[in-house]
Amino acid sequence: MIALHRKLLAECIGTMLLLATVVGSGIMGVKLAGGNDAIALLANAGATAGILYVVIIVLGPISGAHFNPVVTLVMRLHGEIPTMAAVAYIAIQIVAAILGVMLAHAMFDLPLIQPGVHARTGAAQWLSEGVATFGLILTIVLGSRYRPAAVPALVAGYIFAAYWFTASTSFANPAVTIARSFTQTFAGIRPDDVGGFVLAQLAGGAAGMLVAAMLDPHVRHGPRN
Amino acid sequence: MIALHRKLLAECIGTMLLLATVVGSGIMGVKLAGGNDAIALLANAGATAGILYVVIIVLGPISGAHFNPVVTLVMRLHGEIPTMAAVAYIAIQIVAAILGVMLAHAMFDLPLIQPGVHARTGAAQWLSEGVATFGLILTIVLGSRYRPAAVPALVAGYIFAAYWFTASTSFANPAVTIARSFTQTFAGIRPDDVGGFVLAQLAGGAAGMLVAAMLDPHVRHGPRN
Amino acid sequence: MIALHRKLLAECIGTMLLLATVVGSGIMGVKLAGGNDAIALLANAGATAGILYVVIIVLGPISGAHFNPVVTLVMRLHGEIPTMAAVAYIAIQIVAAILGVMLAHAMFDLPLIQPGVHARTGAAQWLSEGVATFGLILTIVLGSRYRPAAVPALVAGYIFAAYWFTASTSFANPAVTIARSFTQTFAGIRPDDVGGFVLAQLAGGAAGMLVAAMLDPHVRHGPRN
Amino acid sequence: MIALHRKLLAECIGTMLLLATVVGSGIMGVKLAGGNDAIALLANAGATAGILYVVIIVLGPISGAHFNPVVTLVMRLHGEIPTMAAVAYIAIQIVAAILGVMLAHAMFDLPLIQPGVHARTGAAQWLSEGVATFGLILTIVLGSRYRPAAVPALVAGYIFAAYWFTASTSFANPAVTIARSFTQTFAGIRPDDVGGFVLAQLAGGAAGMLVAAMLDPHVRHGPRN
Repeated sequence: MIALHRKLLAECIGTMLLLATVVGSGIMGVKLAGGNDAIALLANAGATAGILYVVIIVLGPISGAHFNPVVTLVMRLHGEIPTMAAVAYIAIQIVAAILGVMLAHAMFDLPLIQPGVHARTGAAQWLSEGVATFGLILTIVLGSRYRPAAVPALVAGYIFAAYWFTASTSFANPAVTIARSFTQTFAGIRPDDVGGFVLAQLAGGAAGMLVAAMLDPHVRHGPRN
Repeated sequence: MIALHRKLLAECIGTMLLLATVVGSGIMGVKLAGGNDAIALLANAGATAGILYVVIIVLGPISGAHFNPVVTLVMRLHGEIPTMAAVAYIAIQIVAAILGVMLAHAMFDLPLIQPGVHARTGAAQWLSEGVATFGLILTIVLGSRYRPAAVPALVAGYIFAAYWFTASTSFANPAVTIARSFTQTFAGIRPDDVGGFVLAQLAGGAAGMLVAAMLDPHVRHGPRN
Repeated sequence: MIALHRKLLAECIGTMLLLATVVGSGIMGVKLAGGNDAIALLANAGATAGILYVVIIVLGPISGAHFNPVVTLVMRLHGEIPTMAAVAYIAIQIVAAILGVMLAHAMFDLPLIQPGVHARTGAAQWLSEGVATFGLILTIVLGSRYRPAAVPALVAGYIFAAYWFTASTSFANPAVTIARSFTQTFAGIRPDDVGGFVLAQLAGGAAGMLVAAMLDPHVRHGPRN
Repeated sequence: MIALHRKLLAECIGTMLLLATVVGSGIMGVKLAGGNDAIALLANAGATAGILYVVIIVLGPISGAHFNPVVTLVMRLHGEIPTMAAVAYIAIQIVAAILGVMLAHAMFDLPLIQPGVHARTGAAQWLSEGVATFGLILTIVLGSRYRPAAVPALVAGYIFAAYWFTASTSFANPAVTIARSFTQTFAGIRPDDVGGFVLAQLAGGAAGMLVAAMLDPHVRHGPRN
């Protein structure tokens, strides 16, 4: 039995490292890539995949390694976390995500808080976020059932792909979305566009959970031995 | 015993995600790479490898994760799937592949259906597809026998390499080939060139099955424990 | 019981290969990338991740595969290595790191010793090194407890990410830092800037050890079950 | 007990696929990279790593997956293969490597045989090949002892790194070197320069075997428990 405050510390450290990586590698990529955003996105996607693999393995045994309010909601609906803990998880994820953005800014000697200016809106962007989150939840729910030890690599591989196959570069995480509205760098988003993204992510996550249950009615019963 | 409709849903979801990734990451790559197609193909190959690893792990326990009519034919010949199920698999793979292309177009706000214009024909291209499919079938058949748990990573690693070592960028899949004739983007192919590719893929797949049996006469007897 | 001289030879070979890779791949990257430093850093990060995965797996069973004085200090504090052995490890790591830089220079037909000229100083750089080393120690300490077999891949994945998300490209290792002051190529650092980096790395490593103990009070008791 | 002719077929198929990948991905990389050889080498290294991972897993259980005369010599010296089989292995590796180059040329619609023109000579290049082969043999010998299941990933990770950290891009294989003298594309070498490379590879391989035995005197006794 791991105490809740340890779980929350794990969610905090993991989400901070995730956001520091997403934002920091975007800054470094743009700085070095001389205007070729494809190289910046390759670095951004590779670095994000690398850190996801790490934080899910090393913090998963403590908190479950959610780092994402949609994941926490799915785990709540699957009965794997009590309501109050879920609320605390989501609160800490949002705070830690913003701290992670500030940490990236500090490492690159930039203003700590920068209201985002990158426009990301419209039906195609929302569809992208819906599909991205659908696939993420499907990956986590089915992966947890069929090959739990591979979930860290699955999430890393999925997010690497989703950075490229969606038009939005796959935020797929409301805490990440809110936090990225505090940067004007490569990974940023306008505060006005956060709401649409979060709604699309919730819809996509619900669809992922539903389709997973259609594919395997026992998916909520934990790992198949 | 998993019901056929669940298997078909798994083939549908997996093939859609695969094509959305192949086509979507190609669109994103070209959009960002400023004319350097090598960077676009790196992204395309990396994203495809990532999603293949994911869909084979999370959907394999349901449907076997074929996503490819040549694979389904080989599994039929190995006696691992009944004839009627194989026919249904192949039909759903083709439909889902086209839906995946449309999904990629929708996410990037492009016309949903675009008859392909990318010429891919001639002996060198057909040889490329034959070699690509030969290697894919060899990888799957021998991998399933010697290290079944590694098949997802094997297919991902193989396809990443084959995107680069063949002149055709390795379609190696008739459903993928048909579907890619519905896009004018990076990953597209002219409808007139589909037939040659599919024939070459069937020939290559047959050669792969034959050589696998020459290498190991027991290859059809399932995993070596 | 493995003799100390074998352990020191393993630390020597591993650290040499690590530095030859860090410096050599930087030289090759800059030589080929035509001024696009993002591509050079992608190659640099990928090559470093590759060799870390290798040397930790093949030399870990002999010496523990530290290759880093901060790691050796943490292992000393965790009681996993006697004081005199730790002193010898650190001495050999520094010497081998410099030999590795000289080996890279020799392979690229450059002067063997070149006092570094690349300025890397200031609070943002020090914060970067602190964060980089914090994450590295957290990764190793928790990874060793929860999934020891994955530590080689964890360190590789973490360092790939940290090359990109920190402003300093994540040296995270005092022996590496000292050795990189002997090259004027891509990976170099001015000798005057070494001290600040090393202090920041020690502080970051201490923080990593502390936070790991807060996350899991039993972290020093070795692998969980 | 696997018949020798099956083993030789496995060596043939694996070596052909390896060379088709090395040469083919080099051609594709240069064709698409618009003069940026760093991107071509990234693709070349990634594709080679991918195919090595595949052919070692799927053909290793049949032939041991040498694909390299230096590896076959080491296995002969370790008593794992009889002399006559070793001679046959090396002959088939050289023939298959040349066939693999021709296959790559055919897929890209180029003349099948092209005497190499790429000058690769001098002490720095020879040192590079010696170091590259030293590391490869160390990786295989120690990896086979401490974590046999990881050898495919180890060789892939090592070669990815060695493509970048050596000045010669790490041929590290006499059969590959001979075969690459038959292409004028990216991966080629002048026939006159083959001898120096092969001698350096033999010296490096011998050093790798010696250092492995110094690190672990029981290294020839097969996998540790």
